[in-house]
Amino acid sequence: MSIMETYFKEKFPFSDDEIQLIFSYFKKVEIKKGAYFLEAGQYCKKIAFIEEGAVVFYQLIDGDEKSCGFTFENDWITQYKSLIQNITSELYIKALETTTLMEISLENMLELIAVLPKAIMLRTELAEEYFISSAQRASDLANLEAEEHYYKLIKDNPNLIHRVPQYYLASYLGIKPQSLSRIRAKS
Amino acid sequence: MSIMETYFKEKFPFSDDEIQLIFSYFKKVEIKKGAYFLEAGQYCKKIAFIEEGAVVFYQLIDGDEKSCGFTFENDWITQYKSLIQNITSELYIKALETTTLMEISLENMLELIAVLPKAIMLRTELAEEYFISSAQRASDLANLEAEEHYYKLIKDNPNLIHRVPQYYLASYLGIKPQSLSRIRAKS
Repeated sequence: MSIMETYFKEKFPFSDDEIQLIFSYFKKVEIKKGAYFLEAGQYCKKIAFIEEGAVVFYQLIDGDEKSCGFTFENDWITQYKSLIQNITSELYIKALETTTLMEISLENMLELIAVLPKAIMLRTELAEEYFISSAQRASDLANLEAEEHYYKLIKDNPNLIHRVPQYYLASYLGIKPQSLSRIRAKS
Repeated sequence: MSIMETYFKEKFPFSDDEIQLIFSYFKKVEIKKGAYFLEAGQYCKKIAFIEEGAVVFYQLIDGDEKSCGFTFENDWITQYKSLIQNITSELYIKALETTTLMEISLENMLELIAVLPKAIMLRTELAEEYFISSAQRASDLANLEAEEHYYKLIKDNPNLIHRVPQYYLASYLGIKPQSLSRIRAKS
């Protein structure tokens, strides 16, 4: 069974036949380390499930790459705002490692939902997961000191220590790389 | 036509009959200024559309009310994380003014979706709106100076100046009330 199949069986009440149907709308894609799933200025017209690998979401602000998220295997990526509002993306989504994706185009997703209406669950699930994690990040940014925020983050997701460059982690925490170095030196 | 009816006709592709059906699952509720739509520790089992009024979302941290959002008329409220994960809320949702709501219980929402499957659009819409606004808040908290963040916020939503107490606005911006006073004194 593929990684995505296991994920689907655990997460959604689809039958085996429905899963076969859903999977027929996806295709496998590999992105090399450093390559882009999406670049700022593009319209995001796809959603993907990461079978293996890791990506960073970032915005280019005054020439600096300011990260706003990381996604690892067993989870979904898309640029949701661009996707649903049909506007160009402000964000880049870049592979931090060679990454294997199962990708579905927006067009195929809409066709799938027309054929199998309950597949809209995928979209709802995605929006809900994204909302909960971004609300948590906003709350932590507003209410925690940088040091607390850092320890909470790596406790919740130990992947961040070894798989994400320090400058991305710093901008995700809203601090300078030097401040993050000082926090890490203490521990 | 009621405020919610106008909103529905603009926003969703439901027929008049479907709107009648959907509305039959809602009930009108009034909350006085200072009263709660939801308190921390409760399970959130409802979603509501604000026809008139304003609410604040806040968390109690070390005795301080730390705001994480405001909602005004013509928009939805719920504590999404509590609702979908069936856990107790960490947040309070309190009326800042006497507020008129059209409320639907989670039970009725699920029944409605069983009767009219495309009503799941309401839930998707809600998750998507919530995600986009919380992602924006997180990005602004991480990347903007407090002063820039304040001006951006009140430009996007002038309601915040006159209808929200200053200490809620300060904690939303992740700063102390005194810092917000200094910013406002300058303008």
